[in-house]
Amino acid sequence: MECLKVKEVEFGSGVPKICVPIVAVTRKEILEMAKQVIAKKPDCIELRIDWYEDVGNPDRILEILKELRNLIGDTVLLFTLRTQREGGEADISCKDYKLLSERVCQSGCIDMIDVEAFMEEGLLYTISKTAHEYGVYVVGSNHDFIKTPPEEEIVKRLQFMDREGADIPKIAVMPRSTRDVLSLLSATLRYRETGGKKPVITMSMGKNGVISRLAGEIFGSAVTFATAGKISAPGQLAIEDVRKTLDILHQG
Amino acid sequence: MECLKVKEVEFGSGVPKICVPIVAVTRKEILEMAKQVIAKKPDCIELRIDWYEDVGNPDRILEILKELRNLIGDTVLLFTLRTQREGGEADISCKDYKLLSERVCQSGCIDMIDVEAFMEEGLLYTISKTAHEYGVYVVGSNHDFIKTPPEEEIVKRLQFMDREGADIPKIAVMPRSTRDVLSLLSATLRYRETGGKKPVITMSMGKNGVISRLAGEIFGSAVTFATAGKISAPGQLAIEDVRKTLDILHQG
Repeated sequence: MECLKVKEVEFGSGVPKICVPIVAVTRKEILEMAKQVIAKKPDCIELRIDWYEDVGNPDRILEILKELRNLIGDTVLLFTLRTQREGGEADISCKDYKLLSERVCQSGCIDMIDVEAFMEEGLLYTISKTAHEYGVYVVGSNHDFIKTPPEEEIVKRLQFMDREGADIPKIAVMPRSTRDVLSLLSATLRYRETGGKKPVITMSMGKNGVISRLAGEIFGSAVTFATAGKISAPGQLAIEDVRKTLDILHQG
Repeated sequence: MECLKVKEVEFGSGVPKICVPIVAVTRKEILEMAKQVIAKKPDCIELRIDWYEDVGNPDRILEILKELRNLIGDTVLLFTLRTQREGGEADISCKDYKLLSERVCQSGCIDMIDVEAFMEEGLLYTISKTAHEYGVYVVGSNHDFIKTPPEEEIVKRLQFMDREGADIPKIAVMPRSTRDVLSLLSATLRYRETGGKKPVITMSMGKNGVISRLAGEIFGSAVTFATAGKISAPGQLAIEDVRKTLDILHQG
């Protein structure tokens, strides 16, 4: 696996890196939650900007990003505008999504940007190109909150995101059975077995899938999302529990 | 799944039960280790009698069992004579293995007995019958310290042990790849999917397989072996770490 170094964090090597989302509505709440999160020393912070009340105002978003960067210092910052189609809050046109993404990449405030891979043909490719020009890494993303697609389909989606320029392909799916959890783990492994070189993020959501949030080191998921308060997807655990478990599994 | 209640322990329901092996050479060491183990409050204690220096002397073994029972009170006791063929210390004929197993079942000191399922045709069936007459439950067991057999083969072995009278079929295999770990987990699930009703114990050994020792609640392994000192198989973790992780996964 090729390891992706972002600031001091090596994604894709050793213990999975812990990313904590900031899920808050007002500027004040976002900055307060950032303080709480940073105190827990995650490897990465994800700003889920779709929760922000002024998400339609790019200038306000840029201001918050500047304040956030000052607050979190050198911690890796992932910017995510999650749309309703993929389980988030944002109701935004593809055009505005692209414009905002590119502007945020140019801000100098973020390290990584989440790009929904299946919103429109060519979108991931285009935003990735811009992002890379400005030194921003791309998490290609896809979510299914209803079911787990067949293993081959999950592998295909990871490979697609890889080809389109994502530095880290990410997929989150919902298991309807324990067998679905195995499918997700198996697909993660299969991406690697079939020549995939990039770090990927995969997870099986909900209670049944919790194991997939902890077993990344063995099956090949480079990042796990954990909470310091409000969860942003079903199945997320508290950062303290995740850290302890990753550590136990690593020492094995 | 049918749950197997042994004393107060329900095997096959909820969080996997923790079994700690006693691996010691002299009578004194066995009893000392028992004290250490019981202080950690495992659900079950396994006496690995093959490590005992006088393993060839059934009378001495019976004496130790009586002392051990007094010491551990109502804790579930699993008696295991692991032969060299299956990774243990004992070099014993099949005839003596059978005689000792039956005598131990009659002792009134043990709750469960481990019977190696593939030592000789009919052996598991015969010992299971005797064990059940005396109220002792049977863990049918099989080990491969070199490799992981194909998934279908693992399922077949679990089904065989089930048919021959084991109350809890158990298989431990060594992964040569991450894919092998998935095979073991998948086989565990498959046993259930194909109509298997008994609690089973399955594990993928070594560092890569550690996840299989912790994910039993989701994939269907009823018991996990943990240490309070000396390990009895590669990949075992300290009981404190196992308990903490099982708890995190259970709360999910």
